[in-house]
Amino acid sequence: MATTKNMQFLRTSNRAAIIKALSLGEAANRAELSSRLGLSKMAISGLVNDLISDGFVEDRKYSPFRDSTWYTGDANGRKPSALSIPPRKINAIGIHIKRYEVHCLIVEIQGNILYHDYCSLTKDMNNDNLSSILVSMIEKALLSNPDYYIAGIGIASIGPLDIMQNRLLYPPDFGHIGDLYLGKLLEEKFHFPVFLDNDMNASAIAEHFYGIGKTCDSLVYVGFGTGVGAGIINHRKLLHGSAGFAGEIGHISINPNGPKCSCGQNGCIETYTSISRLMNNLNVSSSEQLIQKIQNQELTPEEQEHLIQCRNALKTLLITIANLYDPELVIFGELPQKLISIYIDGMESYMNDHMLHHGFQKIRLYSSSFGENTPAIGSASLVFKRIFEGKLPLPDSSS
Amino acid sequence: MATTKNMQFLRTSNRAAIIKALSLGEAANRAELSSRLGLSKMAISGLVNDLISDGFVEDRKYSPFRDSTWYTGDANGRKPSALSIPPRKINAIGIHIKRYEVHCLIVEIQGNILYHDYCSLTKDMNNDNLSSILVSMIEKALLSNPDYYIAGIGIASIGPLDIMQNRLLYPPDFGHIGDLYLGKLLEEKFHFPVFLDNDMNASAIAEHFYGIGKTCDSLVYVGFGTGVGAGIINHRKLLHGSAGFAGEIGHISINPNGPKCSCGQNGCIETYTSISRLMNNLNVSSSEQLIQKIQNQELTPEEQEHLIQCRNALKTLLITIANLYDPELVIFGELPQKLISIYIDGMESYMNDHMLHHGFQKIRLYSSSFGENTPAIGSASLVFKRIFEGKLPLPDSSS
Repeated sequence: MATTKNMQFLRTSNRAAIIKALSLGEAANRAELSSRLGLSKMAISGLVNDLISDGFVEDRKYSPFRDSTWYTGDANGRKPSALSIPPRKINAIGIHIKRYEVHCLIVEIQGNILYHDYCSLTKDMNNDNLSSILVSMIEKALLSNPDYYIAGIGIASIGPLDIMQNRLLYPPDFGHIGDLYLGKLLEEKFHFPVFLDNDMNASAIAEHFYGIGKTCDSLVYVGFGTGVGAGIINHRKLLHGSAGFAGEIGHISINPNGPKCSCGQNGCIETYTSISRLMNNLNVSSSEQLIQKIQNQELTPEEQEHLIQCRNALKTLLITIANLYDPELVIFGELPQKLISIYIDGMESYMNDHMLHHGFQKIRLYSSSFGENTPAIGSASLVFKRIFEGKLPLPDSSS
Repeated sequence: MATTKNMQFLRTSNRAAIIKALSLGEAANRAELSSRLGLSKMAISGLVNDLISDGFVEDRKYSPFRDSTWYTGDANGRKPSALSIPPRKINAIGIHIKRYEVHCLIVEIQGNILYHDYCSLTKDMNNDNLSSILVSMIEKALLSNPDYYIAGIGIASIGPLDIMQNRLLYPPDFGHIGDLYLGKLLEEKFHFPVFLDNDMNASAIAEHFYGIGKTCDSLVYVGFGTGVGAGIINHRKLLHGSAGFAGEIGHISINPNGPKCSCGQNGCIETYTSISRLMNNLNVSSSEQLIQKIQNQELTPEEQEHLIQCRNALKTLLITIANLYDPELVIFGELPQKLISIYIDGMESYMNDHMLHHGFQKIRLYSSSFGENTPAIGSASLVFKRIFEGKLPLPDSSS
């Protein structure tokens, strides 16, 4: 019985590992799967054949209509094999809850967006309003695409969150919303498993699975919006902390005499570097105005000083990230396109020259692969993460 | 063949999990092992019997000389079983390299120190001196205890280190020592596997296995010495970063106008809170003098200000730890006994009141379980960690 349980566990893990490798392009045929997973070709073939008959994997040898060159074969007439997950076969609903907007997506396990809808939120929202909006957005998404297999619903949200119970706590400046058991609500309504995490963690997963962080074991994703936070991947795992509150790097106090922060401290990194604060400090109301004002050199000396302080705080932030998390890669996300140069230019070399272990290692700095869509793709990735880990197994007709 | 490989992998993992559970007191009999490991009692019995015949586990039913009450049995004459690792059966050599001292220990897998020797280092050491000292200390340890089974050598050292290649890089203020392949040297000399990590990571592991952090999934160990650094456990795993440089929390710059730090920044937490800096700032040359001066209220206004700045920096440090790593537990280590109150009193409640997610969670703050021995026990723990993970399997006569 123990052996049976063990064997079933192994089968589930190995199936999940195959789905992961094919979804993320880490392997494309049986030989590569065998070498990546450390299993014999025979074992891989058995598992792959079952996945093919369940419809979750396709062998392009047998799908000539998709790419006719596969049918020509080599000089001996042997046809190469190329395994993949069929397009639109394994999908998830992704919900991204921002302070003033909700996005609802359908994303396929290869990371592509199949459907994207969004809705503005008013400032006086309560739990009932938000719940109704989410339910109707999901209903609309499902109705628009009734033949998609949906593995679950992922929600990336502003925090603080109780991720153990899939619950929104009391996000600041977020209408009257609070203590909202979103997971329970949506599970009961739609009968899909629901996974909630904060927007920064979800974004880090999106970059790790599908973006610039694909080949990295460790990365730090920093999102700049109304606040500044981070999602951290270490040894290919999310750094969650004990209750999901890790990564609040916007609230490192770097100057005891700095501006008051909403968290109670002075001089938090967020007070210098969040997009909202920077626009406020430079007396503009949009990022377009901001970049224009900078390009036209229309800044007053005081505004110029704010911009310098922002860049200095970014430098301290990057050194701190390097010294505290030691990632291979730092990704700056949620930056309006035109602000990327202000936030990134010259920063990578500064970090590498000033971090404690300078000279022993090189950390790269990039802007996010998916721009403003990163947290939304991340929300669906919360579902795919469970599939890849074998915690949300795909239906297995042979077990 | 794949199945055989899988089965051997499972056997190795399960044996390792049993050794771990028994070493760390997480289970004490077959039923507890079965429930903890999720294996049937029959499977557990098979594995345990093999471990007993290999001599790595003992069943106290069969060892009446150790505790005669076990021989009385219950009302039906059934004798209770209590499994354990025999004392002094599985051991490791632990080496702790400090700036001015080297410690050499033999530690048993239950975390107890069986042998402890140390040696001072002069300020003009070079690679050869240090290597000779280490070799002769290990030879002496082995000769003194020739019948101990030694599973490996763990080294906890000041950094920076190249943990991939078990190499000391160029630790600052450490004689002429640098670019020293310690792992290779000791492996060739003693034919034991050698594992190197920095002193803070090793300490975090010691606390996680054997100390106050035993029951925690996540903790941050902070060592205060000549510098200030941290070892971080998240989801029961060490946060290493991409190359082992994570956790340098002493080098968060919290004041751009603060004292110059050796790392090039200003106002690093280390410049306010390391024991060396505090003694320097308060014009004393020992921790005894320090505590005496404070207790006798002999501080000048300037020295008083330094003490306040130290406490303020500790508060910022704790809030930052809570916000960035979100652990269940923070452990302050390497503090001389008499300084503990200065570093810890009132700090736990301050952290919990001022961290971003205050009210949603409670983080505890303790001083280290093993005092100044924490990194040394940690060094041996680097070996036990590999045993527990199944990466350094114990000899298996049945495989």
